Amino acid sequence: MAQTNRQILFMQRPKGMPNDAVFQMTETAIPELQEGEVLVRTVYLSVDPYMRGRMNDRKSYIPPFELNQPLTGGVVGQVEKSRHPEFVEGDIVAGMMDWADYSVVKGDKLNKVNTGLAPISTALGVLGMPGLTAYFGLLDIGQPKEGETVVVSGAAGAVGSIVGQIAKLKGCRVVGIAGSQEKVNYLIDELGFDGVINYKTDDVKQALKEACSDGVDVYFDNVGGDISDAVMSLINYQARIVLCGQISLYNLEKPDVGPRMQGQLLINSALMKGFIVRDYQDRFKEGISQLAEWVAQGKIGYRENIVEGLENAPDAFLGLFKGENIGKQLVKVSEVK
Amino acid sequence: MAQTNRQILFMQRPKGMPNDAVFQMTETAIPELQEGEVLVRTVYLSVDPYMRGRMNDRKSYIPPFELNQPLTGGVVGQVEKSRHPEFVEGDIVAGMMDWADYSVVKGDKLNKVNTGLAPISTALGVLGMPGLTAYFGLLDIGQPKEGETVVVSGAAGAVGSIVGQIAKLKGCRVVGIAGSQEKVNYLIDELGFDGVINYKTDDVKQALKEACSDGVDVYFDNVGGDISDAVMSLINYQARIVLCGQISLYNLEKPDVGPRMQGQLLINSALMKGFIVRDYQDRFKEGISQLAEWVAQGKIGYRENIVEGLENAPDAFLGLFKGENIGKQLVKVSEVK
Repeated sequence: MAQTNRQILFMQRPKGMPNDAVFQMTETAIPELQEGEVLVRTVYLSVDPYMRGRMNDRKSYIPPFELNQPLTGGVVGQVEKSRHPEFVEGDIVAGMMDWADYSVVKGDKLNKVNTGLAPISTALGVLGMPGLTAYFGLLDIGQPKEGETVVVSGAAGAVGSIVGQIAKLKGCRVVGIAGSQEKVNYLIDELGFDGVINYKTDDVKQALKEACSDGVDVYFDNVGGDISDAVMSLINYQARIVLCGQISLYNLEKPDVGPRMQGQLLINSALMKGFIVRDYQDRFKEGISQLAEWVAQGKIGYRENIVEGLENAPDAFLGLFKGENIGKQLVKVSEVK
Repeated sequence: MAQTNRQILFMQRPKGMPNDAVFQMTETAIPELQEGEVLVRTVYLSVDPYMRGRMNDRKSYIPPFELNQPLTGGVVGQVEKSRHPEFVEGDIVAGMMDWADYSVVKGDKLNKVNTGLAPISTALGVLGMPGLTAYFGLLDIGQPKEGETVVVSGAAGAVGSIVGQIAKLKGCRVVGIAGSQEKVNYLIDELGFDGVINYKTDDVKQALKEACSDGVDVYFDNVGGDISDAVMSLINYQARIVLCGQISLYNLEKPDVGPRMQGQLLINSALMKGFIVRDYQDRFKEGISQLAEWVAQGKIGYRENIVEGLENAPDAFLGLFKGENIGKQLVKVSEVK
């Protein structure tokens, strides 16, 4: 077992798009385990857009990252040593851990990964936080009905790609918004989306109008900003807008200003609701079991974009804001033994 | 019976605040009744902020007013003549009718007013559209819970004043926003609001912060704009924002621009929903019966601001945008015989 532990520390709060100065690799010793703790070796590290919010010193649903401390995020890892009765060496576990080779975690904050369901990396994707986010946001808030039109932005991402597929399973017409021809092809050819708009090359408003000739009943919003304004102009009576993310705004240096949406919601008796997956914590088991069934039946496909090496985690994270990934962005840090 | 009928016609679509040129009084003959029709003499005419929206040529929940035709709105009137089996001369009825001394209406578009419940004018106020709007918007969308903080803007208006009182009945702390000292006194002294902010003289953001020290759980929004932005900055986790009206914006000549609310809704898992009272048509009976009970028990008070004379309807309407009325604004056109 390694005596030193590489960690990536959070060094400064970025203004606008984060750069290299935000991150610093350091080496520390692995501390002795206390009673109830588990030493986990990182196998996969998840990078997610919401982490940008934690870099700001602002009240949110999750506390800000602390300066000079390791960044933390979703990890699937393997137990190296345990002083918790429920875990033994070799177990595959998931939880919030450090951007590091190893983390010391309280056992009651860890979940065992069911290695029989699917590859363990899916515990950070389709069978983890992004899959559950898609599942509960779409079904509980969006309440899609057969024959309705569902629009999803960030459609090729870890959440959006699942949202669109669940909406198809519910009998909806699904229109995605994504940022490259490769993504457009993937969503239409492999995932069965009915239409996909390339916001980098299409006239978004015009293309949406054509793709959503019956208007928009459900909008699952991962991006915010102008793209969402365009979707909002097409909503139907009693439309549901699911606010999952606003990635286009996370790196803005000025407050986000745009057309106020209240009037549009008002004249359409429409609903807009924000959420985080934690709101549905009590129902995670239901969600994972349904998603696992759909994956096993081949009804839901997924992709992972895997970067190798802890030292590449910052670039993988920054890539999220450049629209580089299709599907779930992961960093592979070690092998399962 | 009068042989001629004064009507107020809609002459031009206003840009910004409507002026006198929008309205024109005319005299016409009363047409012969067709089978199924009823001739109604206007007793009370309702002027309501939503009518401003109908003056624009824009898709909304209700079609635009037609040029050179009488304006229409809520009326309580008395049947002069009936060719509909359910109505006889002398009946007191409510429905959508012309801004006129008389309207010819299809009987199946009319409701009989239960004259035993309360003064008949209340069929346009606390026991009519505004009361039902308050009832369903607050209870169905706002879902106020005991001990929560409810903020209502346009608090002294026909809807806002009822919202605040229902919220009090549900055990909430109620903070109103209104535009004069007289309104502030009325809401606190007569209706039992816990706090009222005068948006014309107070620093709204600061005053709200002080009045809502536990944050805002429910915001019932009648006004929109900057005032709503200030409330939104104080919402709690899983807050509910009920969009009922946006009166501060109805006369804007430019598109309404402001801070986008999506981020704030997102980090608080908050809900924002527009509605119109018609969404709850199936439950009107329940609403009226509950409101009538509260009024009879003295648990809900109301005020009416009554202007005399059909010719004064345009001014009464315009007064809504100057914040002149406390409670329900009505125009009295004739006496009950």
